[in-house]
Amino acid sequence: MRSIPTPRPPRPAALRTLRAAAVGRRTGGFPAAVLAALLLPLLLAGCGSAPGGPPAAGGTSAAAGDAPPVEWAIAIHGGAGTIPQDIPEERKQAYVDALRTALRLGTDALAAGEPALDVVETVVRSMEDDPLFNAGRGAVYTHDGRHELDAAIMDGRDLSAGAVAAVSTVKNPISLARLVMERSPHILLVGDGAEAFADEMGVVRVPQEYFHTRQRYEAWQRVLEQQRNEPDKDTVGCVVRDVFGNLAAATSTGGLTDKRWGRVGDVPIIGAGTYADNRTAALSATGIGEEFIRNAVTHTISARMALRGEGLADAAAVVIHQTLKPGDGGVIGVDAAGHVVFDFNTTGMYRGAADSAGRFEVGIWQHMER
Amino acid sequence: MRSIPTPRPPRPAALRTLRAAAVGRRTGGFPAAVLAALLLPLLLAGCGSAPGGPPAAGGTSAAAGDAPPVEWAIAIHGGAGTIPQDIPEERKQAYVDALRTALRLGTDALAAGEPALDVVETVVRSMEDDPLFNAGRGAVYTHDGRHELDAAIMDGRDLSAGAVAAVSTVKNPISLARLVMERSPHILLVGDGAEAFADEMGVVRVPQEYFHTRQRYEAWQRVLEQQRNEPDKDTVGCVVRDVFGNLAAATSTGGLTDKRWGRVGDVPIIGAGTYADNRTAALSATGIGEEFIRNAVTHTISARMALRGEGLADAAAVVIHQTLKPGDGGVIGVDAAGHVVFDFNTTGMYRGAADSAGRFEVGIWQHMER
Repeated sequence: MRSIPTPRPPRPAALRTLRAAAVGRRTGGFPAAVLAALLLPLLLAGCGSAPGGPPAAGGTSAAAGDAPPVEWAIAIHGGAGTIPQDIPEERKQAYVDALRTALRLGTDALAAGEPALDVVETVVRSMEDDPLFNAGRGAVYTHDGRHELDAAIMDGRDLSAGAVAAVSTVKNPISLARLVMERSPHILLVGDGAEAFADEMGVVRVPQEYFHTRQRYEAWQRVLEQQRNEPDKDTVGCVVRDVFGNLAAATSTGGLTDKRWGRVGDVPIIGAGTYADNRTAALSATGIGEEFIRNAVTHTISARMALRGEGLADAAAVVIHQTLKPGDGGVIGVDAAGHVVFDFNTTGMYRGAADSAGRFEVGIWQHMER
Repeated sequence: MRSIPTPRPPRPAALRTLRAAAVGRRTGGFPAAVLAALLLPLLLAGCGSAPGGPPAAGGTSAAAGDAPPVEWAIAIHGGAGTIPQDIPEERKQAYVDALRTALRLGTDALAAGEPALDVVETVVRSMEDDPLFNAGRGAVYTHDGRHELDAAIMDGRDLSAGAVAAVSTVKNPISLARLVMERSPHILLVGDGAEAFADEMGVVRVPQEYFHTRQRYEAWQRVLEQQRNEPDKDTVGCVVRDVFGNLAAATSTGGLTDKRWGRVGDVPIIGAGTYADNRTAALSATGIGEEFIRNAVTHTISARMALRGEGLADAAAVVIHQTLKPGDGGVIGVDAAGHVVFDFNTTGMYRGAADSAGRFEVGIWQHMER
């Protein structure tokens, strides 16, 4: 664990803003960029006094209450759960490396001025492609020995959202979710219908074998032998605040090991596992999906900020530690000022955070590693 | 339109409470019943000062701010949308009769002391069976000329919930949703998986032809001819406050005419089309599902009550008239004191309300008919 952060060199704001306008798919071109550049300092000043409060047990707040606002910030997670502190060093290092790789991809994109929506999609795609995580390649096994994937993406600017559930041939469900948002009038497509939509969109398809990993197969066999469901809470997610001050969230998962009957968890449920609103925060959750659905976890955190003026850290802490039960899971979030929050009631959460002020760190248990 | 309500004779509280304990599936037996009888007056006194505020345009609040709390209350809806005031008298009367029939079923059950969860299931089942409504028999046609049904049910006591989406052979989706809640560890099952669960539960199945009605077939043909989707916002829903002070909500729909790709709307999304929490309200929505999902409409109303202390009428009015756009739809709700609220931003909403104080009325446009 190195204790010295590696700050990224700051780039001139005007250049960054123009670049972002050029690459942004939906940023509205130059006038929007100029407007953003003009309004950003005001927005940041207004939000700079946000959160604070003591960091909750099991969670870490990335920004002190009086820290200067940042130009961009990102947080990622790779699932929360009972992660034994004595996992083999090699395995721990593999997760740390995987988190760093995903986080670096996001920070490079943000520093280059890419918009939030593109960044969360890119980062979650990369985590879907990594067999270590329960999303895309590496997804868990269903009761029938198959893989069924769920994903959701949300744009904090206008609350537009897209999600897919129970898809089985789509290499990157998060990109299909984005297509649902942008190329259909709907938000949630499921099962065979979502596959038909994937046909029309021409996204990359893979055979079920693509999703296989020995680790997940053995986990499924253990569940079958023990005849009890040991919820696998792994999921991947990414939340971003870009240089324009826009927020976006994306979450993707293979769901629960040994799940049955077309079970859909919280990930593709807008307001449960995924939510983003420029006025409050971008949020992505991981844990026992049903608890996150019935308590509308990400929407509740957003609502506490909007309706009570709570900071992100306080709002997340109440929901994770008072509403939910120990062991249920956790959440990552970033607010309009770029404050990043992790909070979880499990022993660990695979996670990482970075921002334009030079923060770049990943963690599994309580402490973070730079 | 008769102007004199037909009050139901009050029954002794103790008798009603015992009867309810005997028929309730999950009421916890005699001690719970006694506890309820003891606590009910306190609860009611505490909630009696709730809402008030001026009734919002397009909506009607069933209870004045200082009305005495009721022992039970129910509201139902059969969809909101552009309902021309000049529909044939015969057709109008058919809807009024259908609403009265469903409402009477609910009031009889509540007066007999049945628990909220049973009542909302019974009432929504009956509306699913009625071909006039877009739920169960009478469901709209998908783009492929099929019927795909969604439903959700939620128990305000403990936020337990069940939902199904994109099922195509289940006669009563709301009852399958209840089985998901009570007989599976999950909340949401979709598509083929939900059908497999229905197999295991042994629920009544029907061929696709069962769902056919000429009215919905012709509506689909019109959409196909016009090559544009004219959202059919019909849905059915029921919210109840029972004699124990418990709340429950149920919603069921055939979705959108000409929907494609396994589209799932707000109905089975807990916090979007359906929510129930004893601490706030039971809510069921109807309208353009995607707008209700992205704004987490029912959960937002509940959150405004919980986090800001707003009354049900005020909370619903803000969301329906400020957050949503004209034409999006509406919501029905009942709070812990039995105050019923309808609110909608469409020209009409098929709806009805009744309570233990003698209210029994149905409506389509602004005014109600007793």
